[in-house]
Amino acid sequence: MRVAEKDFRTIWPDARCQFVEIIDQTKLPFAFEIVRITSVEQMVHAIGSMQVRGAPLIGVAAAYGMALATLEDDAEAHVLRAAQLLINSRPTAVNLAWAVNRMLRVLQKPNTLNNSASRNLAAWREAATIAEEDVAQNQAIGQHGLAVIKRLYNNKTLNILTHCNAGWLATVDFGTALGPIYAAHDAGIGVHVWVDETRPRNQGAFLTAWELAQHGVPHTVITDNAGGHLMQQGLVDMVIVGADRVTANGDVCNKIGTYLKALAAFDNIVANHRIPFYAAVPTPTIDWQISDYNTIEIEERDGDEVAFLQGLSKDGSLQKMRLIPLESKAANPAFDITPARLVTGIITEKGVFAPNELHQLLT
Amino acid sequence: MRVAEKDFRTIWPDARCQFVEIIDQTKLPFAFEIVRITSVEQMVHAIGSMQVRGAPLIGVAAAYGMALATLEDDAEAHVLRAAQLLINSRPTAVNLAWAVNRMLRVLQKPNTLNNSASRNLAAWREAATIAEEDVAQNQAIGQHGLAVIKRLYNNKTLNILTHCNAGWLATVDFGTALGPIYAAHDAGIGVHVWVDETRPRNQGAFLTAWELAQHGVPHTVITDNAGGHLMQQGLVDMVIVGADRVTANGDVCNKIGTYLKALAAFDNIVANHRIPFYAAVPTPTIDWQISDYNTIEIEERDGDEVAFLQGLSKDGSLQKMRLIPLESKAANPAFDITPARLVTGIITEKGVFAPNELHQLLT
Repeated sequence: MRVAEKDFRTIWPDARCQFVEIIDQTKLPFAFEIVRITSVEQMVHAIGSMQVRGAPLIGVAAAYGMALATLEDDAEAHVLRAAQLLINSRPTAVNLAWAVNRMLRVLQKPNTLNNSASRNLAAWREAATIAEEDVAQNQAIGQHGLAVIKRLYNNKTLNILTHCNAGWLATVDFGTALGPIYAAHDAGIGVHVWVDETRPRNQGAFLTAWELAQHGVPHTVITDNAGGHLMQQGLVDMVIVGADRVTANGDVCNKIGTYLKALAAFDNIVANHRIPFYAAVPTPTIDWQISDYNTIEIEERDGDEVAFLQGLSKDGSLQKMRLIPLESKAANPAFDITPARLVTGIITEKGVFAPNELHQLLT
Repeated sequence: MRVAEKDFRTIWPDARCQFVEIIDQTKLPFAFEIVRITSVEQMVHAIGSMQVRGAPLIGVAAAYGMALATLEDDAEAHVLRAAQLLINSRPTAVNLAWAVNRMLRVLQKPNTLNNSASRNLAAWREAATIAEEDVAQNQAIGQHGLAVIKRLYNNKTLNILTHCNAGWLATVDFGTALGPIYAAHDAGIGVHVWVDETRPRNQGAFLTAWELAQHGVPHTVITDNAGGHLMQQGLVDMVIVGADRVTANGDVCNKIGTYLKALAAFDNIVANHRIPFYAAVPTPTIDWQISDYNTIEIEERDGDEVAFLQGLSKDGSLQKMRLIPLESKAANPAFDITPARLVTGIITEKGVFAPNELHQLLT
């Protein structure tokens, strides 16, 4: 997507396959810095410190980490050690282990075992393939979501509310929840995005707003408290969010606060129907093993993410501040569940499905 | 209420009626500073800069401002000019004009017009009466709310969620929404409060958490996003909020985000019933003129309240930081409406009423 009038992805290899470059997302939105990653160790740090984040992106980052490992030393012991380091760099996302194991399978094929050059070439090729697959998946989500937006569009600006960041910064390019929005904007459809700040980590205010600004998509940042009122006022035409997991029944596990927006969308009428609420995800995010959403374990993160917040100080530096009394403690559940009854549809790379139609993906 | 083991109100006169002291609420929760107010001008500044805030409290502050005016110069011209300055110090709260006009009526009574000493004495007495009436009203709200809490209490900690600050800091003492919670805590009932941070001005994290900590009430600060999830998990037994206005039908106009919590309370079952949602208000907050809540104008405040936030920096100073990209703008609606269908009851100084019973207050 566009950054200062130039096309960027979140991660890309050097043309001669000697290193990888990433956008340092810990500095956004107040600084745009590109970091060169030349070793496995550096990639492990980049993932662990969230310079790259978002489940699809960290999968691709780990794949490139494996390519860097073969460049360092393609002996099996080194490659396996690198695989373990990369898998352990973040605790929860399935994409990490999935991408690393896919890289290992390629590196262990007989025909790539012949010599270092072919192993190395195979590694860079596979990482690039994983990256391209992510891009293609998101483009397909964008096109299916675009069809939904076109049906709702009535030649006046369509107001779309989103929560957290499921944009191109969370993927290699295009994004999941923001994919349809970029597709609509690029197709000349007038869209305006209400960007939920998304406390405590402010991915909406820091990342989604920045992405949209760079690509020129009209948007307004709001507190997480404001969406319900805007819906009551008829100022929200649809909601699109990403998801960390979708159950076989169509329940949506996503960033904390998503459920409250789904309730408000369900409670308010726009253009003679309830405000549509969509989750946009690649099909691997659907967990066919889970039918009772109460069995999903919700990550409880450190209360300091609520108690402290980093922002841009007057002197232009990034400063961390305390936001709760010294005597108080904070709780920080990271995700919530939006039951399928509140979900209009799941936008995937294979089409858009109502929760009770999801099973069609299995046939 | 208690601050560092000592009893405090938010405002109090000097024993010899020469000045007034207030707690500077712009410094909370990171510093507890008492400010001496010796002139009308200083009181106008204290109200305008929100050193004192909360509708009931600024009414009382304005009353004491009138007492200070008579002390300066009890000529009618001066007193009337002071009245105008005080009424104009904040734009919206009805309490301000109500308290100032009540002071003017007392000052204009024939028997107080005899001499300066009697005018002055009458002014300080009336201001103190207004303050005591506020305290008594809140104590009554606390007792009626305590009865509600006792009915829900089952000998294990009762988890109460609140939004924004309707505590003693918003009044002279005890508070409205927090009144029942203090009454329960003081009566030995085990309560724990989930404190919504309440973006953008963070009155929950800054004021409610501080109040509760000082008085020793167990509490945990959460983001505004977290309440719905906690309700899904059965971790919220009731919700109590304050209100800026309640319609004759029992619709509750309160700080932005209240509606989302009411939706979630209505959507979740605890102890075989929907999670009870109460608003605690003095009866003058009920606006009998309004039956259609869509006619209530919702204040749209400066987007900079969303874009910037003040906190405690590492060096112990208060710092303001920017939280959204330089290219982005923010919207900041300040209140929302919780329709009566989501409200269990209104706790007033005259008793607790279901929305459809409110009219009993008129007979």
